[in-house]
Amino acid sequence: MDIERYSAGPCPTGRGLAMMGDAWSMLILRDAGFGMTRFDQFRTSLGIAPNILARRLKALTAAGVLERRLYSERPPREEYLITPAGRDFLPILQAIGAWGRAHNGGGALSHMVDVETGAPIDPVVVDRHTGAPIGTRKLQLVMPGT
Amino acid sequence: MDIERYSAGPCPTGRGLAMMGDAWSMLILRDAGFGMTRFDQFRTSLGIAPNILARRLKALTAAGVLERRLYSERPPREEYLITPAGRDFLPILQAIGAWGRAHNGGGALSHMVDVETGAPIDPVVVDRHTGAPIGTRKLQLVMPGT
Repeated sequence: MDIERYSAGPCPTGRGLAMMGDAWSMLILRDAGFGMTRFDQFRTSLGIAPNILARRLKALTAAGVLERRLYSERPPREEYLITPAGRDFLPILQAIGAWGRAHNGGGALSHMVDVETGAPIDPVVVDRHTGAPIGTRKLQLVMPGT
Repeated sequence: MDIERYSAGPCPTGRGLAMMGDAWSMLILRDAGFGMTRFDQFRTSLGIAPNILARRLKALTAAGVLERRLYSERPPREEYLITPAGRDFLPILQAIGAWGRAHNGGGALSHMVDVETGAPIDPVVVDRHTGAPIGTRKLQLVMPGT
């Protein structure tokens, strides 16, 4: 990952991931969530080396978050579609974006708005049952079988 | 990352990260969130090679999510404490855990409970303003300066 580039870029998710380690997989998923499907689209968007991109696409397909489909028979050409499991990860990328905005957020940043209301989105992780943001109540880890 | 190991392990966050790419940094942060501070604690918990662990601890310290502190003068020994920025990332690890549980969740898994009520936590990413889970309403990306 080109940490310098993403630390200076407009995407708060990229800002967050630049701090959190090698995260090509998540950035590919981010772009797939925005509708990209083809090798060259990902390569151009991410500035990623072709061999690394090929490896990550293979791993993401094996993990079931992307699905490979032939879009041309002659010559044979493949594209990568986001699966329901991949789509389920997109809200986490939004939460990483909010974190990147808060802790690595200098300069101009992109943001997400609700299409219908135009209101900016402020992602937060809460407990579905109580609505309490995670981190505001004391939690305990329970290991399996205990 | 030992993908086999984490894909079979009890931690849903590990399950999720095993699918999402190299995520040592996030697993170190997970352990730091549970109170681990010392090199040998992280090494034993994660089964990570010492040189990789040293590199990740350095990067996490540079990113400001861990802070290095001398806990012994003679011999000089250091420990790593989670910072407020690091602590802010912990809810995201919970959300990744919920995703791992949903999509890579065979076998016995650990879970988090509310200490006071004993109720299991079900992390979900919502919009702070409306409470709507991200992904349930149509969103649009707005680039800076537009």
